[in-house]
Amino acid sequence: MQQPQWFEDFDENFIWEHTIPGLSAEEIIAFAERYDPQRFHLSDTAARETHFGGLVASGFQTQLECFKPLCEQVFKHAHGVGSPGLDSLKWLRPWYPEEALAIRVKLISQRRSSKHTDRGYLGFELTARVDGHPTLFMSWTVIMLTRESGLSA
Amino acid sequence: MQQPQWFEDFDENFIWEHTIPGLSAEEIIAFAERYDPQRFHLSDTAARETHFGGLVASGFQTQLECFKPLCEQVFKHAHGVGSPGLDSLKWLRPWYPEEALAIRVKLISQRRSSKHTDRGYLGFELTARVDGHPTLFMSWTVIMLTRESGLSA
Repeated sequence: MQQPQWFEDFDENFIWEHTIPGLSAEEIIAFAERYDPQRFHLSDTAARETHFGGLVASGFQTQLECFKPLCEQVFKHAHGVGSPGLDSLKWLRPWYPEEALAIRVKLISQRRSSKHTDRGYLGFELTARVDGHPTLFMSWTVIMLTRESGLSA
Repeated sequence: MQQPQWFEDFDENFIWEHTIPGLSAEEIIAFAERYDPQRFHLSDTAARETHFGGLVASGFQTQLECFKPLCEQVFKHAHGVGSPGLDSLKWLRPWYPEEALAIRVKLISQRRSSKHTDRGYLGFELTARVDGHPTLFMSWTVIMLTRESGLSA
Protein backbone atom coordinates (compact mmCIF):
# COMPACT_ATOMS: atom_id res chain seq x y z
CA MET A 1 0.00 0.00 0.00
CA GLN A 2 1.29 3.42 -0.91
CA GLN A 3 1.39 5.66 2.14
CA PRO A 4 -1.69 7.90 2.13
CA GLN A 5 -0.78 11.50 2.92
CA TRP A 6 -3.77 13.67 2.10
CA PHE A 7 -7.56 13.55 2.30
CA GLU A 8 -7.75 12.39 -1.35
CA ASP A 9 -5.33 9.51 -0.74
CA PHE A 10 -7.77 7.74 1.58
CA ASP A 11 -10.49 5.96 -0.34
CA GLU A 12 -13.09 3.25 0.25
CA ASN A 13 -10.44 0.59 -0.25
CA PHE A 14 -8.41 1.75 2.73
CA ILE A 15 -7.86 -1.17 5.10
CA TRP A 16 -5.11 -1.43 7.69
CA GLU A 17 -4.41 -4.62 9.59
CA HIS A 18 -1.87 -5.29 12.28
CA THR A 19 -1.44 -7.73 15.14
CA ILE A 20 0.10 -6.66 18.41
CA PRO A 21 1.57 -9.01 21.02
CA GLY A 22 -0.15 -9.32 24.38
CA LEU A 23 0.76 -7.08 27.29
CA SER A 24 2.56 -8.45 30.32
CA ALA A 25 0.87 -8.30 33.74
CA GLU A 26 3.53 -5.74 34.72
CA GLU A 27 2.61 -3.46 31.79
CA ILE A 28 -1.09 -3.69 32.67
CA ILE A 29 -0.43 -2.85 36.32
CA ALA A 30 1.93 0.04 35.51
CA PHE A 31 -0.68 1.68 33.24
CA ALA A 32 -3.42 1.18 35.84
CA GLU A 33 -1.32 2.74 38.59
CA ARG A 34 -0.80 5.79 36.38
CA TYR A 35 -4.31 6.26 34.94
CA ASP A 36 -6.96 3.74 35.99
CA PRO A 37 -6.35 2.39 39.51
CA GLN A 38 -9.20 -0.12 39.82
CA ARG A 39 -8.52 -3.41 41.60
CA PHE A 40 -9.04 -5.69 38.59
CA HIS A 41 -6.37 -3.71 36.67
CA LEU A 42 -3.94 -3.58 39.61
CA SER A 43 -3.78 -7.08 41.08
CA ASP A 44 -4.36 -10.54 39.71
CA THR A 45 -5.35 -11.73 43.19
CA ALA A 46 -7.97 -9.00 43.62
CA ALA A 47 -9.22 -9.51 40.04
CA ARG A 48 -9.84 -13.19 40.74
CA GLU A 49 -12.54 -12.14 43.22
CA THR A 50 -14.42 -10.31 40.44
CA HIS A 51 -16.29 -11.71 37.45
CA PHE A 52 -13.17 -11.03 35.33
CA GLY A 53 -11.52 -14.03 37.00
CA GLY A 54 -8.04 -12.52 36.68
CA LEU A 55 -6.09 -9.38 35.82
CA VAL A 56 -7.43 -7.41 32.81
CA ALA A 57 -6.06 -4.36 31.02
CA SER A 58 -7.70 -0.97 31.47
CA GLY A 59 -10.00 -0.40 28.49
CA PHE A 60 -8.16 2.88 27.93
CA GLN A 61 -4.91 0.97 27.63
CA THR A 62 -6.48 -1.40 25.08
CA GLN A 63 -7.65 1.63 23.10
CA LEU A 64 -4.20 3.24 23.16
CA GLU A 65 -2.30 0.06 22.30
CA CYS A 66 -4.57 -0.28 19.22
CA PHE A 67 -4.18 3.38 18.25
CA LYS A 68 -0.41 3.58 18.65
CA PRO A 69 0.65 1.34 15.71
CA LEU A 70 -2.04 2.89 13.48
CA CYS A 71 -0.65 6.30 14.31
CA GLU A 72 2.95 5.22 13.74
CA GLN A 73 2.25 3.40 10.49
CA VAL A 74 -0.44 5.61 8.95
CA PHE A 75 -1.37 8.91 10.59
CA LYS A 76 2.17 9.97 11.40
CA HIS A 77 2.85 10.22 7.65
CA ALA A 78 -0.40 11.98 6.76
CA HIS A 79 -1.62 15.55 7.14
CA GLY A 80 -4.20 15.04 9.84
CA VAL A 81 -5.08 18.06 11.96
CA GLY A 82 -6.88 16.43 14.87
CA SER A 83 -10.24 14.89 15.57
CA PRO A 84 -13.59 16.16 16.87
CA GLY A 85 -13.99 12.94 18.86
CA LEU A 86 -15.14 9.35 18.95
CA ASP A 87 -18.58 8.29 17.80
CA SER A 88 -18.39 4.98 19.61
CA LEU A 89 -16.06 3.05 21.87
CA LYS A 90 -17.14 -0.41 22.99
CA TRP A 91 -15.27 -2.73 25.29
CA LEU A 92 -16.72 -6.04 24.17
CA ARG A 93 -14.53 -8.42 26.13
CA PRO A 94 -11.75 -7.96 28.71
CA TRP A 95 -8.16 -8.06 27.44
CA TYR A 96 -6.13 -10.53 29.54
CA PRO A 97 -2.30 -10.59 29.77
CA GLU A 98 -0.32 -12.17 26.92
CA GLU A 99 -3.27 -12.27 24.51
CA ALA A 100 -2.30 -11.11 21.01
CA LEU A 101 -4.73 -8.60 19.53
CA ALA A 102 -5.55 -8.53 15.80
CA ILE A 103 -6.53 -5.02 14.74
CA ARG A 104 -8.41 -4.10 11.58
CA VAL A 105 -9.20 -0.52 10.56
CA LYS A 106 -11.34 0.52 7.63
CA LEU A 107 -12.49 3.81 6.19
CA ILE A 108 -16.27 4.16 6.45
CA SER A 109 -16.90 7.75 5.33
CA GLN A 110 -15.21 10.61 3.53
CA ARG A 111 -16.64 14.10 3.29
CA ARG A 112 -15.12 17.43 2.28
CA SER A 113 -15.65 20.32 4.66
CA SER A 114 -18.11 22.83 3.27
CA LYS A 115 -16.68 25.54 5.54
CA HIS A 116 -12.93 25.00 5.16
CA THR A 117 -11.92 24.13 1.61
CA ASP A 118 -8.48 22.93 2.72
CA ARG A 119 -9.75 19.88 4.64
CA GLY A 120 -12.19 17.00 4.88
CA TYR A 121 -13.51 14.49 7.39
CA LEU A 122 -12.54 10.81 7.32
CA GLY A 123 -14.57 8.30 9.33
CA PHE A 124 -12.75 5.18 10.52
CA GLU A 125 -13.83 1.99 12.29
CA LEU A 126 -11.41 -0.14 14.28
CA THR A 127 -12.11 -3.66 15.49
CA ALA A 128 -9.63 -5.56 17.68
CA ARG A 129 -10.03 -9.31 18.18
CA VAL A 130 -8.49 -11.97 20.41
CA ASP A 131 -8.67 -15.37 18.68
CA GLY A 132 -11.51 -14.02 16.56
CA HIS A 133 -13.48 -12.67 19.53
CA PRO A 134 -14.28 -8.93 19.20
CA THR A 135 -12.59 -7.20 22.14
CA LEU A 136 -12.69 -3.51 21.25
CA PHE A 137 -14.66 -1.48 18.71
CA MET A 138 -14.01 2.18 18.04
CA SER A 139 -15.32 4.58 15.43
CA TRP A 140 -14.04 8.11 15.08
CA THR A 141 -13.44 11.01 12.72
CA VAL A 142 -10.11 12.45 11.58
CA ILE A 143 -9.78 15.90 10.03
CA MET A 144 -7.35 15.64 7.10
CA LEU A 145 -5.91 18.36 4.86
CA THR A 146 -6.56 18.11 1.12
CA ARG A 147 -3.84 17.72 -1.46
CA GLU A 148 -4.63 21.19 -2.88
CA SER A 149 -4.05 22.77 0.52
CA GLY A 150 -0.59 21.19 0.57
CA LEU A 151 0.28 22.29 -2.94
CA SER A 152 -0.82 25.86 -2.30
CA ALA A 153 0.97 26.10 1.05
CA MET B 1 -19.71 13.74 50.57
CA GLN B 2 -19.83 10.23 51.94
CA GLN B 3 -17.88 7.87 49.72
CA PRO B 4 -20.31 5.96 47.47
CA GLN B 5 -19.49 2.27 47.37
CA TRP B 6 -22.41 0.44 45.79
CA PHE B 7 -24.93 0.95 43.00
CA GLU B 8 -27.50 2.27 45.51
CA ASP B 9 -25.06 4.87 46.89
CA PHE B 10 -24.97 6.78 43.62
CA ASP B 11 -28.06 8.92 43.17
CA GLU B 12 -29.22 11.83 41.05
CA ASN B 13 -27.41 14.22 43.38
CA PHE B 14 -24.02 12.75 42.60
CA ILE B 15 -21.66 15.49 41.42
CA TRP B 16 -17.89 15.37 41.48
CA GLU B 17 -15.75 18.41 40.75
CA HIS B 18 -12.01 18.69 40.62
CA THR B 19 -9.46 20.96 38.97
CA ILE B 20 -6.18 19.60 37.66
CA PRO B 21 -3.09 21.69 36.92
CA GLY B 22 -1.92 22.03 33.33
CA LEU B 23 0.52 19.58 31.79
CA SER B 24 4.05 20.64 30.93
CA ALA B 25 5.23 20.51 27.30
CA GLU B 26 7.53 17.66 28.34
CA GLU B 27 4.60 15.61 29.71
CA ILE B 28 2.62 16.18 26.51
CA ILE B 29 5.55 15.12 24.32
CA ALA B 30 6.36 12.03 26.44
CA PHE B 31 2.76 10.77 26.17
CA ALA B 32 2.67 11.44 22.42
CA GLU B 33 5.93 9.56 21.85
CA ARG B 34 4.44 6.58 23.67
CA TYR B 35 0.91 6.53 22.23
CA ASP B 36 0.02 9.25 19.74
CA PRO B 37 3.03 10.38 17.70
CA GLN B 38 1.50 13.15 15.59
CA ARG B 39 3.55 16.27 14.94
CA PHE B 40 1.30 18.73 16.82
CA HIS B 41 1.67 16.56 19.97
CA LEU B 42 5.44 16.06 19.55
CA SER B 43 6.91 19.46 18.75
CA ASP B 44 5.91 23.02 19.46
CA THR B 45 7.75 24.16 16.33
CA ALA B 46 5.91 21.69 14.10
CA ALA B 47 2.59 22.47 15.79
CA ARG B 48 3.01 26.18 15.01
CA GLU B 49 2.71 25.30 11.34
CA THR B 50 -0.75 23.79 11.94
CA HIS B 51 -4.02 25.49 12.82
CA PHE B 52 -3.35 24.59 16.49
CA GLY B 53 -0.70 27.35 16.57
CA GLY B 54 1.39 25.49 19.15
CA LEU B 55 1.85 22.22 21.01
CA VAL B 56 -1.39 20.52 22.14
CA ALA B 57 -1.98 17.43 24.26
CA SER B 58 -3.20 14.20 22.65
CA GLY B 59 -6.95 13.98 23.15
CA PHE B 60 -6.38 10.55 24.69
CA GLN B 61 -4.09 12.14 27.26
CA THR B 62 -6.73 14.76 28.09
CA GLN B 63 -9.26 11.96 28.56
CA LEU B 64 -6.93 9.99 30.86
CA GLU B 65 -5.87 13.00 32.92
CA CYS B 66 -9.57 13.68 33.56
CA PHE B 67 -10.36 10.07 34.39
CA LYS B 68 -7.43 9.47 36.71
CA PRO B 69 -8.50 11.70 39.64
CA LEU B 70 -12.12 10.53 39.28
CA CYS B 71 -10.91 6.95 39.54
CA GLU B 72 -8.64 7.70 42.50
CA GLN B 73 -11.22 9.71 44.40
CA VAL B 74 -14.43 7.84 43.54
CA PHE B 75 -14.28 4.59 41.58
CA LYS B 76 -11.30 3.15 43.44
CA HIS B 77 -13.47 2.97 46.57
CA ALA B 78 -16.57 1.58 44.87
CA HIS B 79 -17.54 -1.86 43.60
CA GLY B 80 -17.45 -1.19 39.88
CA VAL B 81 -16.90 -4.19 37.63
CA GLY B 82 -16.00 -2.51 34.38
CA SER B 83 -17.71 -0.64 31.58
CA PRO B 84 -19.31 -1.63 28.27
CA GLY B 85 -17.88 1.52 26.70
CA LEU B 86 -18.25 5.22 25.98
CA ASP B 87 -21.39 6.67 24.46
CA SER B 88 -19.65 9.86 23.43
CA LEU B 89 -16.22 11.46 23.51
CA LYS B 90 -15.85 14.97 22.11
CA TRP B 91 -12.68 16.97 21.86
CA LEU B 92 -14.15 20.45 21.78
CA ARG B 93 -10.99 22.52 22.01
CA PRO B 94 -7.26 21.68 22.09
CA TRP B 95 -5.59 21.47 25.49
CA TYR B 96 -2.45 23.62 25.52
CA PRO B 97 0.44 23.28 28.02
CA GLU B 98 0.01 24.76 31.49
CA GLU B 99 -3.76 25.27 31.18
CA ALA B 100 -5.62 24.16 34.32
CA LEU B 101 -8.64 21.98 33.57
CA ALA B 102 -11.83 22.15 35.67
CA ILE B 103 -13.62 18.79 35.59
CA ARG B 104 -17.26 18.20 36.51
CA VAL B 105 -18.89 14.77 36.54
CA LYS B 106 -22.56 14.09 37.11
CA LEU B 107 -24.72 10.98 37.20
CA ILE B 108 -27.25 11.01 34.36
CA SER B 109 -28.84 7.56 34.56
CA GLN B 110 -29.20 4.61 36.91
CA ARG B 111 -30.74 1.29 35.93
CA ARG B 112 -30.72 -2.14 37.57
CA SER B 113 -29.71 -5.04 35.37
CA SER B 114 -32.70 -7.25 34.55
CA LYS B 115 -30.38 -10.16 33.81
CA HIS B 116 -27.93 -10.00 36.72
CA THR B 117 -29.59 -9.08 40.01
CA ASP B 118 -26.25 -8.29 41.66
CA ARG B 119 -25.50 -5.22 39.53
CA GLY B 120 -26.76 -2.11 37.79
CA TYR B 121 -25.71 0.42 35.17
CA LEU B 122 -24.68 3.97 36.06
CA GLY B 123 -24.45 6.60 33.32
CA PHE B 124 -22.02 9.47 33.84
CA GLU B 125 -21.22 12.67 31.97
CA LEU B 126 -17.90 14.46 32.32
CA THR B 127 -17.19 17.98 31.10
CA ALA B 128 -13.72 19.53 31.36
CA ARG B 129 -13.25 23.27 30.87
CA VAL B 130 -10.33 25.67 30.47
CA ASP B 131 -11.32 29.14 31.71
CA GLY B 132 -14.96 28.17 31.20
CA HIS B 133 -14.42 26.91 27.63
CA PRO B 134 -15.59 23.29 27.16
CA THR B 135 -12.52 21.28 26.17
CA LEU B 136 -13.59 17.65 26.56
CA PHE B 137 -16.98 15.95 26.94
CA MET B 138 -17.34 12.27 27.72
CA SER B 139 -20.35 10.13 28.58
CA TRP B 140 -20.05 6.49 29.56
CA THR B 141 -21.58 3.65 31.55
CA VAL B 142 -20.17 1.93 34.63
CA ILE B 143 -21.36 -1.49 35.83
CA MET B 144 -21.65 -1.35 39.63
CA LEU B 145 -22.48 -4.10 42.11
CA THR B 146 -25.52 -3.63 44.35
CA ARG B 147 -25.34 -3.41 48.12
CA GLU B 148 -27.24 -6.71 48.46
CA SER B 149 -24.63 -8.49 46.35
CA GLY B 150 -21.97 -7.27 48.77
CA LEU B 151 -23.92 -8.31 51.88
CA SER B 152 -24.64 -11.76 50.50
CA ALA B 153 -21.05 -12.33 49.35
